[in-house]
Amino acid sequence: MEKFNALYAQSGGVTSVINASACGVIQTARQHADKIGKVYAARNGIIGALTEDLIDTSLETDADIAALRNTPAGAFGSCRHKLGAIEKHRKQYERLVEVFSAHNIRYFFYNGGGDSQDTAHKVSLISKELNYPITCIGIPKTVDNDLPFTDNSPGFGSVAKYVAVSIREAGLDVASMALTSTKIFVMEVMGRHAGWIAAAGGLAAEKEGDAPHIILFPEIKLNTAVFLKRVDETVKKFGYCAIVVSEGVKDEDGNYISESGLVDAFGHKQLGGVAPVIAKTIKENLGYKYHWALADYLQRAARHIASKTDVEQAYAMGKAAVEFALAGKNAVMPIIVREKGDVYRWTVGEAPLEKVANVEVKMPREYITEDGFGITPACRKYLLPLIQGEDYPPYHNGLPVYVKLKNAPVAKKLTTVFDLAG
Amino acid sequence: MEKFNALYAQSGGVTSVINASACGVIQTARQHADKIGKVYAARNGIIGALTEDLIDTSLETDADIAALRNTPAGAFGSCRHKLGAIEKHRKQYERLVEVFSAHNIRYFFYNGGGDSQDTAHKVSLISKELNYPITCIGIPKTVDNDLPFTDNSPGFGSVAKYVAVSIREAGLDVASMALTSTKIFVMEVMGRHAGWIAAAGGLAAEKEGDAPHIILFPEIKLNTAVFLKRVDETVKKFGYCAIVVSEGVKDEDGNYISESGLVDAFGHKQLGGVAPVIAKTIKENLGYKYHWALADYLQRAARHIASKTDVEQAYAMGKAAVEFALAGKNAVMPIIVREKGDVYRWTVGEAPLEKVANVEVKMPREYITEDGFGITPACRKYLLPLIQGEDYPPYHNGLPVYVKLKNAPVAKKLTTVFDLAG
Repeated sequence: MEKFNALYAQSGGVTSVINASACGVIQTARQHADKIGKVYAARNGIIGALTEDLIDTSLETDADIAALRNTPAGAFGSCRHKLGAIEKHRKQYERLVEVFSAHNIRYFFYNGGGDSQDTAHKVSLISKELNYPITCIGIPKTVDNDLPFTDNSPGFGSVAKYVAVSIREAGLDVASMALTSTKIFVMEVMGRHAGWIAAAGGLAAEKEGDAPHIILFPEIKLNTAVFLKRVDETVKKFGYCAIVVSEGVKDEDGNYISESGLVDAFGHKQLGGVAPVIAKTIKENLGYKYHWALADYLQRAARHIASKTDVEQAYAMGKAAVEFALAGKNAVMPIIVREKGDVYRWTVGEAPLEKVANVEVKMPREYITEDGFGITPACRKYLLPLIQGEDYPPYHNGLPVYVKLKNAPVAKKLTTVFDLAG
Repeated sequence: MEKFNALYAQSGGVTSVINASACGVIQTARQHADKIGKVYAARNGIIGALTEDLIDTSLETDADIAALRNTPAGAFGSCRHKLGAIEKHRKQYERLVEVFSAHNIRYFFYNGGGDSQDTAHKVSLISKELNYPITCIGIPKTVDNDLPFTDNSPGFGSVAKYVAVSIREAGLDVASMALTSTKIFVMEVMGRHAGWIAAAGGLAAEKEGDAPHIILFPEIKLNTAVFLKRVDETVKKFGYCAIVVSEGVKDEDGNYISESGLVDAFGHKQLGGVAPVIAKTIKENLGYKYHWALADYLQRAARHIASKTDVEQAYAMGKAAVEFALAGKNAVMPIIVREKGDVYRWTVGEAPLEKVANVEVKMPREYITEDGFGITPACRKYLLPLIQGEDYPPYHNGLPVYVKLKNAPVAKKLTTVFDLAG
């Protein structure tokens, strides 16, 4: 059997476990060295594929590839570059065929979220449209948890754990100081369009009075008066109020709160930061002293507190992608399937890339309490399995050991330079 | 030997390990039940002592007291209340004597930073001034690491570890995306007057090019032009620039940067947040896309990533406080002594409260590089031992298990109500 090479690439915002998927791809391919030649990685996602900027992962040691499982962010670089439609941007696809062909690449694994699966789907059309035999498998990844078909998206469970742990800890801090100091704590989390990450904060509240007391979702337009009343009641009842707010929360007119109030000294709108706006609204109306935090990239890079379940699922998706390819499947994405029953069990399924691309799954309304400020038991039941287990990275000298690969370039074979803008 | 009761209280901003000191106090006192009666805790620090709001820790199980070692924040509540000078505010001290006397309290353990050790020192004067025999021992605590005599302050090592881990992780995230997205990441950390916490971020940079590339200290006035030049050089050399900035950084006129620029829609100054100001300055001058994070309480509550060394030292300080009291010492604070030699070893020493009170230790200038943007090898040598070791809390259902004590009140014996404002 003739051996062909594989190309793996990372796409979109990185996560603390996307490298675990890379590890799954490369380790599994190495186990099938009779069928798959080298695994190349595209530097900075699809851009590396277009510019023939390839990395030879066969030069990495087994130990370094294994360490990818413990290393956050994108070891080969990622990008947010989208491919246009094949009818209109035929040159891009012809270029991919040139690169694939020059490097004997017949397997393409693209690791990303909804937009990236759209790219993967378009690449899968190359076989038919350009008559080059490429096997294309998507690998799911996104902290936003908005991919369809899959029970959840690798990357989300670890952010969920980080957010739940952090608000539990900060809540205890505020509770200790509330009598004479800070009474309000606002923690802003990611989630421009869907409240999954904010919802995960709710897992920390196991008993009445536990932080967080209020969650603000992008799905629920903020009624300031009702919100302030709830904050005041919470402070009067529990002595303090801990709030998790999604960056995507909007006012009643549908405008992002983060863009509503702050301007700099030059009158420019201040970008980012719904937490300070919420905190200040509370201070101005209720007078309570506040603190706020904005975790930003810390939350999606926090491999030190990753969910073991998430790491295992991310790895399994990478492994399944290679197995799918070897089994002759094409234009599909492995997914996580939640089995029926009270105990959480999951298996690997598959979904067609065509149907995955560009679909955003929102939180069901029944996962948010009727008042709009919390999560329901159904939501908790869905979320809780995803944060189970700890999977600590190794430490040296007090700090986590994260691998930095050699990322040696593959010698270019093409003489033409591709213009990304073209 | 007649047995007297002890009073323990937590003061000032809480940390992820102050409860480990409480654990050390209570466990050690329980081991000396022949000499020490009950350990009461004052609810919300010295306020609980003044208002006779005491907690009976003898009602807590051994397991719950042991769990304090793993639990962040202040289990008995803390406060920022300072006692006035004994000559001017004699009533406060007379009240303390009333409370101590009513509850047979002859040992007072006060767990806090510089301001709190001032309070502890004043309480220690009661024996002489008011002729009530009280043994008063301070217990060091502060994330700011600004207490004199002690090698470091319990609470600091864990924040240091959190900051170093977080900037390492976020740095990897930014590095992966930098080609087509965010090139600047700014992480704001605590430290209004001293740059110890910001300096700890520097531990993450082990090799040239590692994050963080720039640290902004409160000790070094920010020269914006020089800073921007360095940011630009860093991006051009490494593709991105990760910056740790202390909340206390000032401009060349000595004004806090955090108060320099942002106003809300009503023209009010926006409190808090030097990170967005720095990020926006970079964007406006160099055009680079940015992200920023502000960890706030997350950093000092992060028991999930506490330094094992810090936890052990915090515990040892609580234990030593009780042992000092039983050895007849008074008006002292146990301290951490760094032994000579290349391998880090520490022992417990002592310092007089009179000399500890109200002294703030700044970072030595020789711990900051000449250009003002980094830490020197001497600083690294000092800091590195303090973040050594992990001390993970137990987890249940994916979340850390933190104990919530019963905190049952001690029946009041006094008929008078004390007016704190009076």
